[in-house]
Amino acid sequence: MALVEPPDRTKEDRKAADTVIAALAARFGNRLVTSRSVREQHANTTTWIANEPPDAVVFPQCTDDVQQIVRLCAAERVPVIAFGTGTSLEGQINAPRGGISLDFHDMNRVLAVHAEDLDCVVEPGVTRKQLNEQLRDQGVFFPIDPGADASLGGMAATRCSGTNAVRYGTMKDNVLALKVVLANGEAMSTARRAKKSSAGYDLTRLLVGSEGTLGVITELTLRLAGIPEAVASGVCPFPTVDAACNATILTIQSGIPVARIELLDALQVRACNSYSKLALPEMPMLFLEFHGTDAGVAEQSQCFGEIAQELGGGPFDWATRAEDRSRLWQARHDAYWAARSLRPGAQAVATDVCVPISRLAECVRETQRDIEQSRLLAPILGHVGDGNFHLSLLVDLTDEDEMARAKLLLERLVDRALAMDGTCTGEHGIGQGKMKYLAAEYGEPALAAMRALKRALDPLDIMNPGKIVSL
Amino acid sequence: MALVEPPDRTKEDRKAADTVIAALAARFGNRLVTSRSVREQHANTTTWIANEPPDAVVFPQCTDDVQQIVRLCAAERVPVIAFGTGTSLEGQINAPRGGISLDFHDMNRVLAVHAEDLDCVVEPGVTRKQLNEQLRDQGVFFPIDPGADASLGGMAATRCSGTNAVRYGTMKDNVLALKVVLANGEAMSTARRAKKSSAGYDLTRLLVGSEGTLGVITELTLRLAGIPEAVASGVCPFPTVDAACNATILTIQSGIPVARIELLDALQVRACNSYSKLALPEMPMLFLEFHGTDAGVAEQSQCFGEIAQELGGGPFDWATRAEDRSRLWQARHDAYWAARSLRPGAQAVATDVCVPISRLAECVRETQRDIEQSRLLAPILGHVGDGNFHLSLLVDLTDEDEMARAKLLLERLVDRALAMDGTCTGEHGIGQGKMKYLAAEYGEPALAAMRALKRALDPLDIMNPGKIVSL
Repeated sequence: MALVEPPDRTKEDRKAADTVIAALAARFGNRLVTSRSVREQHANTTTWIANEPPDAVVFPQCTDDVQQIVRLCAAERVPVIAFGTGTSLEGQINAPRGGISLDFHDMNRVLAVHAEDLDCVVEPGVTRKQLNEQLRDQGVFFPIDPGADASLGGMAATRCSGTNAVRYGTMKDNVLALKVVLANGEAMSTARRAKKSSAGYDLTRLLVGSEGTLGVITELTLRLAGIPEAVASGVCPFPTVDAACNATILTIQSGIPVARIELLDALQVRACNSYSKLALPEMPMLFLEFHGTDAGVAEQSQCFGEIAQELGGGPFDWATRAEDRSRLWQARHDAYWAARSLRPGAQAVATDVCVPISRLAECVRETQRDIEQSRLLAPILGHVGDGNFHLSLLVDLTDEDEMARAKLLLERLVDRALAMDGTCTGEHGIGQGKMKYLAAEYGEPALAAMRALKRALDPLDIMNPGKIVSL
Repeated sequence: MALVEPPDRTKEDRKAADTVIAALAARFGNRLVTSRSVREQHANTTTWIANEPPDAVVFPQCTDDVQQIVRLCAAERVPVIAFGTGTSLEGQINAPRGGISLDFHDMNRVLAVHAEDLDCVVEPGVTRKQLNEQLRDQGVFFPIDPGADASLGGMAATRCSGTNAVRYGTMKDNVLALKVVLANGEAMSTARRAKKSSAGYDLTRLLVGSEGTLGVITELTLRLAGIPEAVASGVCPFPTVDAACNATILTIQSGIPVARIELLDALQVRACNSYSKLALPEMPMLFLEFHGTDAGVAEQSQCFGEIAQELGGGPFDWATRAEDRSRLWQARHDAYWAARSLRPGAQAVATDVCVPISRLAECVRETQRDIEQSRLLAPILGHVGDGNFHLSLLVDLTDEDEMARAKLLLERLVDRALAMDGTCTGEHGIGQGKMKYLAAEYGEPALAAMRALKRALDPLDIMNPGKIVSL
């Protein structure tokens, strides 16, 4: 059964795709796949954005393969869409104009680990867990941890972060250099292994977060961190979301180098209790982790405990045993699934915004009120040390009235974040889902600059078109 | 007396400049200056790069002024060169094709301090010391400290860093958002105040380090850090540069969050002893600083002391009193002047490279040997936690033979850094002085991408032309 044609595609586009597919088949043999199921797996499968499959999926094994694929596509003006693990949330991997999906599954080697320099070089298909398993015995780790076991290429492309970002930064801070295949088929290196440089334009940071629209990442040099001597975790309940947020602000301001500080609202705690068999009090809760020396983490956690008490929170409950700690953070990582269990059969639409931390309590409080007034179910959890929080909107995709209420809620959430000098997304990216908010967030001059940059590096508009900005 | 005309300028160019100057005079009155001395002060006055003055200097007072100036210049295709304090080292403020220098001296207000969010908003003419004086009573500080008391606009434009970068990062990590006037006269905001965002292309990081070639910065939102509860400083001698570098590597790898770790070679120590009236042993020396709690800095310094001892260094000498600490760091900040005092009357040509830290010892050692074999005098000091080091080459600009040797030495220094996967500049930038090294550092595809970006945002090539890349 044929799939529905992408809406904006002409007969010529279809013919061009066929030409490229024939050439790819000749070159890549069974590393080119055109079956419907595989194509659908390579398009968006999360949230409510429709699945828009590519015309074919190809599995490159090296940078040179990618260059050949891009050159073939460029010759026929066929879109090129990079694919890691398919866990992005805003339709970043969809093919609204058809095209070729490049699946980096086979480019999954750790090419070098320079433990002395605290960096490593990897192919884009390596996932974060795979990397950390390979690093462990060298005393170093890669700290960025989105919910999914995402590929590092995809993580760089979406400028993702996670629970450790408050201490270790986001992908922007942890990518030292990239190898990138540009729309013209040339491969460029964006930087060298030096820890800092002021040599010319920061191509690395321009590519990080560009979601495959400026080029395809084929190699990453990543910063690593030393595995801390001591790790301490704990949970701390608060009477209100405000109190939890204020404790977070004080913690950051006091210079306590907290490694993780995660807010779960009462509803999310209830979900986690039920899903992960915990017995936490069902009230706003901070999950915390401290990294350092034994003496250091003891001091950090004591300082935090005092702050929490001052704000009416506590008791701060320690997970001193490694297995309790793992259980706690596993529950945090399973929060998405826990949320879904609140309403079996519903779809969870995950979204995120980020605001200056001083506005966080207000933003979360107003959002909770809005959820209630919209008669929707949406637990909240957040990387509150960064002012970043998530909603898991549990919806029945077939209920039109509910969906209309949900969409309005999401728009008000973004408006609220922007009104507080925040951003429409702290870590999920723009993809297709949030393109409409960019003008409000940046204003026309910045948006025009983004379009100019896109045209400069991708004049034919073949690199993941229809994402971030439209030409 | 008329100045020499810029070499590439035609009669039409001169006429265009006159047209702009007349319009600026009408609009800005005595805020437009065309005297020779002021023009010369607004061009390069450091190192051996020739002074190439602009046609006029104008003192804007707000973003709207800058927009008007840029529009007038764009209409006549006259270059626009932003000027902070004139302390850049690679000719960044020169006007090789003439043009209008925008001196931000009068845009020196701190517009807002958000201590809760650890950020502030400033105009580009604010200097780092001025900012820290205004922040002090709010318990926060801005950590980036290049040698000079530079303007924050200039510091962002050159992606500078300094002694605190090993802990607090460089300008790339500490600029949250910029307001920038583009070549078309539009003012764009590159980001909002949220601590992180994955919304579209990272315009902030693209502008940081672009040296005024993509736009003129008229406002900066900066990250701040909390003033640490305790600060401890000390000095530690080592038998060799290698031992000092290895101690640095181990310190970083052990996760000791050192705030400053600075190498001075024996010659630089001698210079500082003489200039700053210190009595340090004249051997390779690390200057260190630790930030944290009382217990934290005590623990950090104990750990460092053990590492130093293990590598044959020490004794690690504490400066417990604040005045001893200030004296030490003042001596470090005066290292440039101390170096000059080694050869009165000589010019100090300051340069820097940055390599992966594992290669640092080798790079410094080979450079010392090269200096000796070149019969030149050049003390070395470095931000070794980042693998970044400086040479102060003491030369007689009128001695042709010596200058020839010096130039070859500098070229070999860059070649050496690049061969070690390093960069031709860790913090001084490209300007005019290091343009010739970009192709070797990045390769042609990346350089072509940089040119494409420049053309995209500045199609008329009026924004600080002749710096970083030539169109």
